[in-house]
Amino acid sequence: MTTPVSVPPATIADLGERALIERIRARLPAAPSSLIVGIGDDAAVAAMERGALTVLTTDALVEGVHFDRRYSSAVDVGYKALSVNVSDVSAMGAAPRLALLSLILPPDLPVADVDGLVDGFVDLGRATGVTLAGGNITRSPGPLVIDVTVIGTVKPRRVLTRGGGRAGDQLFVSGSIGAAAAGLAWLREQARDLTSAPDDPLLMDCLLKHRRPEPRARVGALLGRTRAAVACMDLSDGLADAVRQIARASGTGARIESARLPLHPAARAYFSARGQDPVLASVTGGDDYELLFAVTARARGRLKTVERQARGVPLTRIGELTSDPVLVLDHGGSVEPLPGGFVHF
Amino acid sequence: MTTPVSVPPATIADLGERALIERIRARLPAAPSSLIVGIGDDAAVAAMERGALTVLTTDALVEGVHFDRRYSSAVDVGYKALSVNVSDVSAMGAAPRLALLSLILPPDLPVADVDGLVDGFVDLGRATGVTLAGGNITRSPGPLVIDVTVIGTVKPRRVLTRGGGRAGDQLFVSGSIGAAAAGLAWLREQARDLTSAPDDPLLMDCLLKHRRPEPRARVGALLGRTRAAVACMDLSDGLADAVRQIARASGTGARIESARLPLHPAARAYFSARGQDPVLASVTGGDDYELLFAVTARARGRLKTVERQARGVPLTRIGELTSDPVLVLDHGGSVEPLPGGFVHF
Repeated sequence: MTTPVSVPPATIADLGERALIERIRARLPAAPSSLIVGIGDDAAVAAMERGALTVLTTDALVEGVHFDRRYSSAVDVGYKALSVNVSDVSAMGAAPRLALLSLILPPDLPVADVDGLVDGFVDLGRATGVTLAGGNITRSPGPLVIDVTVIGTVKPRRVLTRGGGRAGDQLFVSGSIGAAAAGLAWLREQARDLTSAPDDPLLMDCLLKHRRPEPRARVGALLGRTRAAVACMDLSDGLADAVRQIARASGTGARIESARLPLHPAARAYFSARGQDPVLASVTGGDDYELLFAVTARARGRLKTVERQARGVPLTRIGELTSDPVLVLDHGGSVEPLPGGFVHF
Repeated sequence: MTTPVSVPPATIADLGERALIERIRARLPAAPSSLIVGIGDDAAVAAMERGALTVLTTDALVEGVHFDRRYSSAVDVGYKALSVNVSDVSAMGAAPRLALLSLILPPDLPVADVDGLVDGFVDLGRATGVTLAGGNITRSPGPLVIDVTVIGTVKPRRVLTRGGGRAGDQLFVSGSIGAAAAGLAWLREQARDLTSAPDDPLLMDCLLKHRRPEPRARVGALLGRTRAAVACMDLSDGLADAVRQIARASGTGARIESARLPLHPAARAYFSARGQDPVLASVTGGDDYELLFAVTARARGRLKTVERQARGVPLTRIGELTSDPVLVLDHGGSVEPLPGGFVHF
């Protein structure tokens, strides 16, 4: 959309830091009573649960590396920045509680984009029980960076590390894989933008998974609380990478059965139509914020409990950890090495 | 120093993310037992104290905004990035415990600079009892950004917010003011660099205060623990700004006696020699990570206890909070409005 008269939008340089903080504060929902001091002091103060471990993570989204403003709105970016952090806390079996938001902003950024970032962040915070407790704003001569810290809690002996698996444990994955990669590929393919929409509603779902991945907060907390899983990791860098990480940390190998992989149907169709192997594209594509987890034979019953309470999120068995220290993709008998995951540098 | 043969140093793009994380992990001291899961999983896990409040803060240093690589080494930047965050936690009366380190790095950054950032960070962590619990590394097409989160603990009813002051409370400041501003001004004055050193050792001290400000971790924790102070803030944006913030949050005015201000002697000499008002330059100059705090009449005895345990850090009375809602600088009877502090945008 174009405006007939070109009025330059207010930028953060026009507004100043204090006004910007006030503007952000005004967009936030009421905080829970466990937040003793919120935004506006030197630091936030929270009364965390007794008898609980504190879980901490930080992850940044950088413009031009993790997102492209042609493909994602400010609301999308704010949502996703919190999502990737909630996903990490959930992958530990913990419940996310508090977040800190560090905004590193080019001075010509329209104020409306700051509003959007906060709105997206708050949207997901509301859905996952995460309170924005504080943060920081600074200008930068470089790209927009949104750096988030999330703090969660988990009961002792309920923590799910990557290294808790043993040979013989079955591997499960939540939801579907490949959708975010297919969505991003579709956007890039013809230099599409925010206004582009595919005809296929399932492919539109892939765009949404790229722009606003939903972290598996409920599934992760259930896996920890019920002790259904013994090891867990999220798929931020793709399924193949997550399998590699869990196997390495657990001191095992892994065998993944390609026929069992829950490929998103539109991702399968998208990659197939372009002559790419849909399995390969889906296991190596990043940005699926699903959970990969290992379940012992004894814990199958507990997993049923998690499935019943997962509100429709499918949990699919895709293979197992092995004593043989290799990582293989099994195509119904013929095996090949598991491909690599997404590489950051 | 120049090397005779020009061998390009290894960059982070050569090394890759995993190797970089391993390299960082190898530079860290042993973690305390309260750190259940450290670097390398989806998130860090810590057992925080029982019966304590959790204090959280985040602050970023951006190249070209908060530091200049001509004036500060990588070690300096790593040190300062943790320092500014520890300072915020200490200004709440809390003890800093854990840190997360988010590095947003240009791909051509020499690996030796990453080592330096970590070494500086770990140096101050060791001195202040802060354990690096986790973090994130990402590449960026823009400037180097080092974004840090610090988590601390404080007993309930020991938290020092900005808003706890009342009219009649005396205002104190730790250490001296103006040194960091004088040090930076000296560096900028003739486009000096890392090898430049002033003849005057006191001025060299100012350079050090700019490059590696020591947070008042001990004083802050003592002020909280003993309840000697009722309100506190650090001087990240200068003394004038801190007075303004405490007065605003406390619903008071403030009167600062200029003759009482503990100007760093080299800062006083530096600004005077250049025809600048040393008081004005020192109260508006940022980057002094001293603490400004308010003390009630009843708490003077407790303040003596803090002074005895402060290991030589002077605590100077500089004025008081007033019921008259104005902020004034009192030059022995003639008053003028308190000038503004450092402005970020």
